[in-house]
Amino acid sequence: MSGRLYVIGTGPGNPEQMTPEALAAVSNSTEFFGYGPYVDRLSLRPDQQRRISDNREELDRARAALDRAASEVNVCVVSGGDPGVFAMAAAVCEAIDNGPAEWRDIDLVILPGITAMLAVAARIGAPLGHDFCAISLSDNLKPWDVIERRLQLTAKAGLVIALYNPISKARPWQLGKAFDILREILPAQTPVIFGRAAGRPDERIAVTPLGTAEAADADMATCVIIGSAETRIISRDGKPDLVYTPRFTAGETK
Amino acid sequence: MSGRLYVIGTGPGNPEQMTPEALAAVSNSTEFFGYGPYVDRLSLRPDQQRRISDNREELDRARAALDRAASEVNVCVVSGGDPGVFAMAAAVCEAIDNGPAEWRDIDLVILPGITAMLAVAARIGAPLGHDFCAISLSDNLKPWDVIERRLQLTAKAGLVIALYNPISKARPWQLGKAFDILREILPAQTPVIFGRAAGRPDERIAVTPLGTAEAADADMATCVIIGSAETRIISRDGKPDLVYTPRFTAGETK
Repeated sequence: MSGRLYVIGTGPGNPEQMTPEALAAVSNSTEFFGYGPYVDRLSLRPDQQRRISDNREELDRARAALDRAASEVNVCVVSGGDPGVFAMAAAVCEAIDNGPAEWRDIDLVILPGITAMLAVAARIGAPLGHDFCAISLSDNLKPWDVIERRLQLTAKAGLVIALYNPISKARPWQLGKAFDILREILPAQTPVIFGRAAGRPDERIAVTPLGTAEAADADMATCVIIGSAETRIISRDGKPDLVYTPRFTAGETK
Repeated sequence: MSGRLYVIGTGPGNPEQMTPEALAAVSNSTEFFGYGPYVDRLSLRPDQQRRISDNREELDRARAALDRAASEVNVCVVSGGDPGVFAMAAAVCEAIDNGPAEWRDIDLVILPGITAMLAVAARIGAPLGHDFCAISLSDNLKPWDVIERRLQLTAKAGLVIALYNPISKARPWQLGKAFDILREILPAQTPVIFGRAAGRPDERIAVTPLGTAEAADADMATCVIIGSAETRIISRDGKPDLVYTPRFTAGETK
């Protein structure tokens, strides 16, 4: 009889955005595997143990957690946001796919969370109100030419684009290049939303036209949302602008 | 001084997946505007009033809610899932954009929720573990040729595709046509997930190869997730298959 392996998401960091279901999984687990800043979001009891690892060691972390669950421990793998979106659920599945047969017997429970693009969108209006996509800009896990092609095709398709992992010290130029690619397809006035730490005390949400958008306005904790040609801005006196993408699309996209 | 207008999402229907933040908004509101089955998910006090309207009357509902908020009432507009994904947040923004100036002064608070594709994905593994898109298959709000083009471009881009509003009595043929279009681009063994009522007592999650996927396996409450060419299935003895899309993409997509 193996333990249970929970894979949960904390949401973007505001404790009021974490589901009761995920909180119950935390209460029912004794070992917590994750990147330190995500595990730090949980209030743990003295009998609950933290197993912290670096953000880039996802597969090793997944294997370590599965190994413990196979040893009859209830384990919780912690992601920020939603565990299924560029996060630990895929790493755990990969580890099971390529791991020992006994890992397939583990009671695996994946619980959804509020992913960054939804939290950012809610803070500014409804930029994801029509068809959209989520693309990770990290070329650690896929070649850059695949990313370029995806940006071109989704922009041509008229989708709003949410960029995850837009920039880091090791990947300084990719976001600027992405803006250049999108400027060739989308109008210069297309709204670009830089959504940092949505719902947290250090939240910073800014809107810039694509024509003048600069990569320096993003950091690792930013989700960048690029509107479609139909995305609109509503000005409000004394209140931040609203950005939304209408539910209705009139005709053929470019 | 106007009232506050909350726009919330209940998540897919499991009360344990509704955030504390959204529950607090419910507690703080006195009038609730929404489609009946979504408002029915809330436990309301006797002093809290339901303003139910049909699922297709989103803009009228948004206007009615804004009108009440402008009259110093705290109002809650209720969506299923996340209010920003093919739901009421965009309708409220549209109404503000085209409505009287005073509506821009309303204290608008949009709160994110667990959208269907995230809940379905969590129940089956991590099909959204890599780049993905969300496309509404409803041609009530956009021409069918736009939808066809978006399906073609996103499949060619190698994105996993989550289809919202896949089928209804008034739109019986669109999902079958979408499968036909995708079969011309994606391998026949590409996993297709039919995720109905994720997390609810009447949940039904099924996986079928794209080659034999049938529209009749979906209904209005289904979110259909079509894998990419890289999406994999893990068989488990005595347990449902896991479906996941690896974080790693090796090379150029087709």
